[in-house]
Amino acid sequence: MTPLAVIPFRPLNPKSRLSGIMTREERELFAAAMLTDVIGAVTAAGCTPLVLATTPYTVASVRVRVTDADLSTALNTLLRDQDGPVLIMMADIPLATKEAITAVISADADVAIVPGRGGGTNAIYLQQGSSFATDYYGQSFMKHCRIAEERNLSLEVIDSFRLYVDIDEEEDLVDLLIHGTGESAALLRSFGFQPISMKGRVSVIRSSP
Amino acid sequence: MTPLAVIPFRPLNPKSRLSGIMTREERELFAAAMLTDVIGAVTAAGCTPLVLATTPYTVASVRVRVTDADLSTALNTLLRDQDGPVLIMMADIPLATKEAITAVISADADVAIVPGRGGGTNAIYLQQGSSFATDYYGQSFMKHCRIAEERNLSLEVIDSFRLYVDIDEEEDLVDLLIHGTGESAALLRSFGFQPISMKGRVSVIRSSP
Repeated sequence: MTPLAVIPFRPLNPKSRLSGIMTREERELFAAAMLTDVIGAVTAAGCTPLVLATTPYTVASVRVRVTDADLSTALNTLLRDQDGPVLIMMADIPLATKEAITAVISADADVAIVPGRGGGTNAIYLQQGSSFATDYYGQSFMKHCRIAEERNLSLEVIDSFRLYVDIDEEEDLVDLLIHGTGESAALLRSFGFQPISMKGRVSVIRSSP
Repeated sequence: MTPLAVIPFRPLNPKSRLSGIMTREERELFAAAMLTDVIGAVTAAGCTPLVLATTPYTVASVRVRVTDADLSTALNTLLRDQDGPVLIMMADIPLATKEAITAVISADADVAIVPGRGGGTNAIYLQQGSSFATDYYGQSFMKHCRIAEERNLSLEVIDSFRLYVDIDEEEDLVDLLIHGTGESAALLRSFGFQPISMKGRVSVIRSSP
């Protein structure tokens, strides 16, 4: 059965932690480009994408559902009706590849969790969507492990840096510039961003495009 | 043939970016605990560890070579004599597991590179040690890819967050506390560190042990 890939997305004023280095319009374009990369990866891996947007939004050939509920509530409402496999995938994981997603949806466990940096959850794969309920507030990785345990669901943690890297802050852009091959990396380069070595660390610099 | 696992290590005054939250003595204990975790993982995966230390150091049952050359020079001097397989593994990757290392040393390519956060290189696996020369200064991941290309060596990039996470700064400790099961995570907890949720992000807090 083709897994449904639910991708929560905020079209308006997204990625506010990047507002020091990108205008609101640039952030909206950048978030949309990351969404395109994520949709491309889940589709290539054989999933059917469904964008769960906070405001009306259109993506060619992709179903969009609009909701004003908070993230966990919106996802849990949707999960309740899903007896088949569901992948929940954050929209800001633009290094996602077909191979990395395939590894996630090939997991044998009832629940596969992909950790994100800093205790977050970047993706959850459920053999049966209705078996689980998410809780994204705070230290969500540990919460999701606990929820699986409480529901007697077997759990696998997926080891992938391509899915671990989420883009929230300026320093996260380095790895997208270095490892990214999709639309969001190209857009970032077109904005004039490039990696720069400073005092032994690598950061980003933005030149006029 | 058993791969040699070369682990560069700085016993004295290591991890200076953690000096705001740990004393020098604590940093030395912590670096040693991370080294123990890395040695455990490479040994479990079937490698023979060799610690390349900047000052004299002793680890039970592990060969130690002392060098005062810079990192790349020290490694390249050693590589020159290695016709067999060599894994070069940084000492501050305490989430390393037998499974993650096994995936690296099972790569078919001449060179397998494990990226670290921010354009770094956390591990390199060489089918033939003498075929390669390292260059760790600055954006080393891209440099190492280029070196492989220049030498006509086939290249594989390994996708593992357990090997991508290196511990340099305070915010890196969160993932060690959440995903770590070895000596360094236990030491960190004994120091009183624990993850804490603040303003939607997860950070660390240190209470008196």
